[in-house]
Amino acid sequence: MTRPGPLFPDPSDPRLTRPVSGRDHTGAETELRVVTERPLTIFLNGREIVTAMTVGDYPEYLALGFLRNQGMLLDDDVVTGVDHDEELDTIVVRTGRETGYEEKLKKKTRTSGCAVGTVFGDMMEGLEGLRLPQAELRTSWLYALAAEINTMPSLYLAAGAIHGTVLCHRDRPLVYMEDVGRHNAVDKIAGWMFRHGERGEDRLLYTTGRLTSEMVIKTARMGIPALVSRSGFTAWGVGLAREVGLTLIGRLRGRRFLCLSGAERLIFDADLSAVGGDPAHARRKAAGDG
Amino acid sequence: MTRPGPLFPDPSDPRLTRPVSGRDHTGAETELRVVTERPLTIFLNGREIVTAMTVGDYPEYLALGFLRNQGMLLDDDVVTGVDHDEELDTIVVRTGRETGYEEKLKKKTRTSGCAVGTVFGDMMEGLEGLRLPQAELRTSWLYALAAEINTMPSLYLAAGAIHGTVLCHRDRPLVYMEDVGRHNAVDKIAGWMFRHGERGEDRLLYTTGRLTSEMVIKTARMGIPALVSRSGFTAWGVGLAREVGLTLIGRLRGRRFLCLSGAERLIFDADLSAVGGDPAHARRKAAGDG
Repeated sequence: MTRPGPLFPDPSDPRLTRPVSGRDHTGAETELRVVTERPLTIFLNGREIVTAMTVGDYPEYLALGFLRNQGMLLDDDVVTGVDHDEELDTIVVRTGRETGYEEKLKKKTRTSGCAVGTVFGDMMEGLEGLRLPQAELRTSWLYALAAEINTMPSLYLAAGAIHGTVLCHRDRPLVYMEDVGRHNAVDKIAGWMFRHGERGEDRLLYTTGRLTSEMVIKTARMGIPALVSRSGFTAWGVGLAREVGLTLIGRLRGRRFLCLSGAERLIFDADLSAVGGDPAHARRKAAGDG
Repeated sequence: MTRPGPLFPDPSDPRLTRPVSGRDHTGAETELRVVTERPLTIFLNGREIVTAMTVGDYPEYLALGFLRNQGMLLDDDVVTGVDHDEELDTIVVRTGRETGYEEKLKKKTRTSGCAVGTVFGDMMEGLEGLRLPQAELRTSWLYALAAEINTMPSLYLAAGAIHGTVLCHRDRPLVYMEDVGRHNAVDKIAGWMFRHGERGEDRLLYTTGRLTSEMVIKTARMGIPALVSRSGFTAWGVGLAREVGLTLIGRLRGRRFLCLSGAERLIFDADLSAVGGDPAHARRKAAGDG
């Protein structure tokens, strides 16, 4: 398989934003671009699994990654087809094996509903005893990544109100996905990895969202040993990261950050006097999330 | 019924944060408070409905508000009991009538899973033909509310990484709820309103989160005619707000804001020269969301 190239946002894609008119604080008429949000109903072998609200790009990666991160699609599952119907807002993933996930699905529909984007019962499955590879992480990579990601053209910079997750190798962004659903962005990365047979062991995941239990669980399931964010932590997210050996870095802004798990694997090689402050648009970047 | 008093965050509650140690960007050891995140499984009449990840305060309001905003608890339902088991992380809501929601639940478990905090099929129900009361909104209220909410003691200011939603009357905050799950904060407000028989018609909802379809739908279901946020918009959120006559204001920071629905009901009475800029901690406030 040829190595898939880098994949970055395309804010000029007209399907992803819409011009909307309104008034500003002075009462003046104004027009701006606003991100699209549309439903996508994911089927696995003809069974309806979930309706996700998504910006709409990369539906195949979103479907595969969602099923993968829920443990409904396994490493040895062979995907025989993925059919996206843009008019019906549906996507159907077909696998060789049609059993296995049925029992899981029964359990899921009993425990979810879902107020908070969490399918708790299933999400914890497969984490028991998991230890991520003990990869070192250089602080110079963190600053280089933040600088590049915060200035790269993106839907966020064009329209705001969208989350981003970036798969990186050392100081290089490889795949940058955005979505109105925070977990969709990371699921799209998981789908890309699954589709291209990419492993996570020497990768790093950068996200705009908070470091909650669910983000930590997803990152661990993807086999990625480091998770970095501009945003803050929850206590359970920190606890889970320590359990699985995930390096967890939050509140990365300007030259500041906090490492609450795996600090012993950090190499403080950056020249702090050379690191710039947080640019104004990056502050706005964080502010638009939620 | 006596009017319930204002209800504001209690950041000193030891159950809601935990001290965690780590290292900062210079390699120095540091200790900080991090918000708690724990599961709460909500039952309706003995049937398991959802497991929410929550900071843990006001479980009764969360359960009632979640069921209310999903349309599983109706205006004329009589709640005969709410039992919270802190050890099992469960809460059981009992109603006089035991039917009605069963059919809804069957539909829900078919369509949800849930990647993005949306139960789409059910959420749209009851919105057809809904028109909110055409309440006027003074810009002076917006600035007064933002100034007060951004400086009020909160879990956000103490620990970060948490969302806030505030029920307001004119320029006064009435109930300020916070939660790690963005929709939990608004659901807690809905539960408080349901419990105390409060109506939304002359209220305003302030939130730290984005103005997505789900936030608009929840606000409309609560009968509240105005929704205000520091964060941005999605196109569908704007479209739905225009359909139901909801005044929608986003990107409220310092003296700036954008109104993308209901601008004809705005009264521009504020003296802009007297409005302060966005304080540094409020910028951080926004940055911690996600």
